Formats: sequence, C-alpha cells, structure tokens
Amino acid sequence: MESWGGKIAIIGAGCTRFGENFDQSYDDMAVDATLDAVRDANIGLADIDGAWLSTAFPDAGVWKGRSGMDLAEPLALWDIPVTRVSNYCASAGDALRNACMALLSGAHDCVLALGVEKLRDRSPQGSLVAMQVETGHPFYQKGFTAPGTFSVQAARHFHDNGTGREDLAEISAKNHDHGALNPKAHYRSPMSAEQVLAAPMVADPLTVLDCCPTTDGAAAVILVRLEDAPKHESAGPPVVIRGQGFSVSAGWDSPFYDPEYRFGGFRASRVAGETAYREAEISDPREEIDLAEVHDCFSVSELMAYSDLGFVEPGESGEWVRSGATRLGGEVPFNTSGGLLSCGHPVGATGLRMLYQLTQQLRGTAGEMQVEGARVGLAHNIGGPGAVAAVTILEAT
Amino acid sequence: MESWGGKIAIIGAGCTRFGENFDQSYDDMAVDATLDAVRDANIGLADIDGAWLSTAFPDAGVWKGRSGMDLAEPLALWDIPVTRVSNYCASAGDALRNACMALLSGAHDCVLALGVEKLRDRSPQGSLVAMQVETGHPFYQKGFTAPGTFSVQAARHFHDNGTGREDLAEISAKNHDHGALNPKAHYRSPMSAEQVLAAPMVADPLTVLDCCPTTDGAAAVILVRLEDAPKHESAGPPVVIRGQGFSVSAGWDSPFYDPEYRFGGFRASRVAGETAYREAEISDPREEIDLAEVHDCFSVSELMAYSDLGFVEPGESGEWVRSGATRLGGEVPFNTSGGLLSCGHPVGATGLRMLYQLTQQLRGTAGEMQVEGARVGLAHNIGGPGAVAAVTILEAT
Repeated sequence: MESWGGKIAIIGAGCTRFGENFDQSYDDMAVDATLDAVRDANIGLADIDGAWLSTAFPDAGVWKGRSGMDLAEPLALWDIPVTRVSNYCASAGDALRNACMALLSGAHDCVLALGVEKLRDRSPQGSLVAMQVETGHPFYQKGFTAPGTFSVQAARHFHDNGTGREDLAEISAKNHDHGALNPKAHYRSPMSAEQVLAAPMVADPLTVLDCCPTTDGAAAVILVRLEDAPKHESAGPPVVIRGQGFSVSAGWDSPFYDPEYRFGGFRASRVAGETAYREAEISDPREEIDLAEVHDCFSVSELMAYSDLGFVEPGESGEWVRSGATRLGGEVPFNTSGGLLSCGHPVGATGLRMLYQLTQQLRGTAGEMQVEGARVGLAHNIGGPGAVAAVTILEAT
Repeated sequence: MESWGGKIAIIGAGCTRFGENFDQSYDDMAVDATLDAVRDANIGLADIDGAWLSTAFPDAGVWKGRSGMDLAEPLALWDIPVTRVSNYCASAGDALRNACMALLSGAHDCVLALGVEKLRDRSPQGSLVAMQVETGHPFYQKGFTAPGTFSVQAARHFHDNGTGREDLAEISAKNHDHGALNPKAHYRSPMSAEQVLAAPMVADPLTVLDCCPTTDGAAAVILVRLEDAPKHESAGPPVVIRGQGFSVSAGWDSPFYDPEYRFGGFRASRVAGETAYREAEISDPREEIDLAEVHDCFSVSELMAYSDLGFVEPGESGEWVRSGATRLGGEVPFNTSGGLLSCGHPVGATGLRMLYQLTQQLRGTAGEMQVEGARVGLAHNIGGPGAVAAVTILEAT
C-alpha cells in the first residue's frame, strides 16, 4: 500500500451560502457551488472528466441525490462517470477520497467533488427524524436521535474527564463568534457562553445552542494531480492534499462498539487521524497544524476531536478551550468558519465546505477569519453514530 | 487519461441464493456473499484493506446500507475505509469501478466490492414504489413506475424497429429456461414464449413475465492488481477486467433526454459500451465476445442492449433473438444465469451477481450453464430512468 500524500492538488473551491435557501433548489445549489469552483480553478466544465456527488439523505430532502444523474443533469455534464457516495455525515470526505484515488489511478485527469443537501424544503413530518421513525430504524424509533446520542457522550465525557457544560458553552460561543465573520454561515450572531448555557435544553446537557442547525447548502472542489496543477491558471495557488485517512468502525448503538472509546471519543476519528498524520508525516499535530475545521455537529464533538486528533489528552480538553487556544488568534484556531454550529450542516456538503474554508485560509484569502501565516490545515468529518471518519491534511503551496 | 484495461483481476467471487430470503437478514447475506468470495480467493478477511458497498435503496428495504458501516459491522472489518456507492440499479457496477481505481492508485492492495439488497422483508406499504410516492418524487407520484416507463420504451421500439411482443416473449422464455439451470436463481421454471404472452398484463405490452421480480440477494468479488494475482492461490484462475466504461446521461423523464435515443435505446449504455470496448481493444463485439450478462430488468431492456452494445442494429434485434443466437448454444449467449428476469433484482447486488456469473463461466465452472470455450464476457448494468450504465469486459487467464 502506497502513501498518496502530497500527490493531489485542489485548484478550485466553491461554496454557496449555507442557510434556509428557500430561493434555491437542490439543482441551483449544485450549479452555484460547482461554477464557483470551476471559475476559481479557471477551467471549463468540459475539462471535468469525472465527478463524485455527496448527498447523504435524498429521502429526507427533496428526493435528489440518489445517483450521479442528479449532478450530471443540472450541470449538463453528460457522458462522464459520476459516482454518488454516501457515508452518513462523512459522505463528503469519502467523495473526496474516491476522487483522489481516481486521479492517482490515471483513469481521470480533472475531477469534481460536490456535496449538496437540501433539508429545509420539507415540513417536520417529512424531516430526517420523522422519516427514520416511519421507515422503521430501530434506533430512532426509540427516540435515540442525534442530540440524544451526543448528550449521552457528553455526560460520560464529563464523568470521565472532569469536563462540564461550561466547556461546551465555550466551544459554542467561540464558533458563533467565528461564524459572525463568515458571509456563508447560516448563523451570524456572536454569542456568549452565558447565552449558550441559558438556551433551551434539547437533550441534557446540550442546549439548542450546543446543536448545529438543519441547513441547505453545497460545496465543491476541483482536483488534479499535483504535477498537472501548473497547467491551470487557477485564481489562487493550488492547495496540496498532504494526507488523508478514512476509517469505519462500529457505531455506539452496536454491541461491537469498542469499550475503550465508549463515551470517550471516536475510534474512527483516531484511526483516520493517525493514517492522515502518517501520510502527511506529521508527528506533533499541535505544533505542525496551524488551524482545523472539525465536525462540531454538537459542541461536545469538537471537545472530543481535540483529543481524538492528538492535540491534547481528554482530561486537558476543557482547559484547552477555556484558555482560548482554539479561538481565532489562539494557538490552533478550530472552526474559523464557525463550524457546523454556525454554518449549519447540509449533511453531504459539510466535509467539502471544510475544504473550501481551508483553501481560503491557506491561500490567505479568508478575510476577517484569516489565520495569519496559515500553512497547514486539518479537516475532520465524521458520520454515523460515531462510526465513520475522514481526516484530511491540506498544505499551502 | 490512461486506459486501465487489463490491469485488475478478480481472484474470488461469491453469491448468495437470490430469492425471498426470509431466513436471511441483510447482514447474513452480506456475510455469506463475502465469505464465499474470500474462500474462493483463498485469502483471509484481514487481507482486505478497503471495501465498496453497493446498496441502492436502504429506505425501501430494511434501513441498512446507507454507509460503509453496514458492511464493516457484520464482517468485523474494522478500521479500514468502506465506501457506500449508490447509482440506482447500476450501483454495483460503480462500486466495482471505484474499487478498481483504488487498486490502481496504489492506496489499496486487496479490496472487496459487495452488493446487498433486502427488499422482501417489507409490506407493500413500505415498498420502493410506496416510499417514492410518500416521499414526494414527482415522477412516481404520477404513477410512472419502472414497468410504466419501460412499457413506453417497448411500444416505441416496436413502432420504430418493427419489433413486437413476440420478441420480448422470446427473451423472457430464453432467460427463464437459462434460470432453470441456475441454482442461485429466484425463478427456476422453464417458460415458453406462449406462457409469457398469456401472462397477466402489468403495463402494456409488458406482462408480469416480462418484468423481473423483487428479490433479496448479495454478491461480492475480491480484486487485486493483476501482477499481484499470482501471490494468492485462489480456487480458480484469476479473471481479468479487460475494460470498463461508466456513463451518466439524462433520464427519459428529463427535458435533456437525448432525442436521438428517445425510446430507441440508452445513450448511457452506448457510451459506456464504447468506452469499455476501446479499453478492451474490441472492435467487433459480436465476433470477439463469447457471452454477455445484460440488464434485463424488463425483457425490452435486453432487446435494447443488443443494439446499444453493438451486436446488431435495432431493426435486427427481434430477428436475432428469434434465431436463437442469444440462447445457450447460440452465437452469443445472453444471460446464461437467467438474467434479472429469473435471478431477480436485489438492486445493489445485481451488477456484482453478473460478475459472479461471468467468473464461473470464464473459469469453466458454470455447470449446466457453461458456454463452451468461453474466454471473453461482457456485463451490462444500467440504472436510473435510462441514465446510468456500467459495461465491464472480463477475460479468462
């Protein structure tokens, strides 16, 4: 097995506004994100010879995204292969991975990875949770929804590691403060830790401000082999994929869930992180990584990511966030975009929205969100009940 | 863009019985097909370093197959990447394609492609069509179901090409005769063309015997790079993937559906076929291909495949099937397995079930179904409303 670290470049990245995009259909968002990335790469649509579509929940949205056809049609990308990948909330990370391998195989020369999800056009009766109850998933039928499962993780994290609600509130406040600077974010209101703590409780200890919103959005990247990047006069310098890891393990609803990780973190995150670090030849992430976009679907998942990704020990994670280390201007800013807590979570688009954000950062074009001198960034995209994780390390050129 | 024809080998293939597998869960079938393939390849499960799961309709089945987790868990394939691919009924062909590129990229050395679909465990209220109506797909809400759309294709094919119901009945009878020889098939009853014509009408001109049944099943292959095949003492000789094409175009419900192909065939099949032939360096398929497994979800789709894949002109297709050319013992036997018409169509498994069948044929182990001296076989797997197609050319070693 060969490492493919450092062999693929992002030459263009695009992203729609994330939010209640009632003025945009699934197709509109697919087109906008793709054309944004295509213009950024300074290529034509006809240069794309293969594409990967990430949509996680077609049936919870607008019955779009079950197959590659739903990417091909709005973009008139006829006759080329288009794969639809779904791996729960880590679908975009996996679409990226398959697109990279396709380039390295030589079968493709210039590819698109696009994530789209349209979640706001349905009434609550047709929502994700309602669908899952209707369609008979035993887990959701018991009311064990996403906030429910993450609340159990949080309670156990507190018990084992001496962390608490205040640490979660600190994460949420930080990410809402960052989100206020992001023109693409769903929520753009700065928030104090006190406001987070005082917000209505959804699933104890998670308040509504510890939970990301349900959101529409799309994000895309154009990828080529690194040696081909100079052929394209892209708007900004190419960004190199220095390493990637992808791992699947058992969900926490499974009898096979690894007891070592029960409520302490995600084995999949740890394995994917280790793989990515090995490929990228990173031995000390806290020292070598300048910023990270991590999967804060709930505030507690960012807390767990600090330790799963090797920045601190679990017991140090609360202190680390309270010290301001992960704020803009801190030691390693996390979620300068505002994360899922502010951007929202159009499921299939999230992992690619992270790469869009890191591309801006590593090109020095992130505006008010800019991390000075950012050279190396990490994206962390998880899915399933803790069972799937993608970690990608990007580097400026 | 490089051709990857001839660089990948199937070293193991496995398949469950296709049918109403009330005695088997989704997980049971995933395990059975995989272990069958693993034993055939003479490897251990631990040798698999990446996997691709093809399940097309988790929500129409048993809420399994949305992510790679549903392959990892029953097989305890922890910590490796597992991608779930969905591309309507061509999901399996696309899972195979991504698995092949992963090997060629060097990122993986030994991979599994598995297709599983569990469709019989739900009442009609929870069936695919019912789900689609409930969830608001505008196409299905109008009652334009799969038999409905293919019936329109058939009527137009008759009008344009002088074909007729008798030709369809000939295809169905042939495939049911073949299916009677296949121990894995759902339907194992020989059938006459008269019986097909006299069967209850589903969507004129398609009788119930022109339509494939709804079926449970799983199929799997183990793949390595061709140069690595000798390292494994597989049960039979490796089978080489000599070429593959995958294409996505507009569905026939789309305003962008190519008028040239309107009701005459599938543009996606033609483009995928041309790509596969180019890679495999095949200039005269009728001369160079010894047998084919094509996507006969309805009898008319096999009729269209004859011309889409370049064996005959559309106007000759009826005569060709009536001559017996595509029967076992004929010029180019089509669907020696019995096809979808006899095996049934567990959607995500079908494309890999075709590769299982061809692997047996090219190793000379297909029993009563054996095509004597078979060296080159073609698999044709289509999906969506005529919009997605995978064509794979296999060769014996």
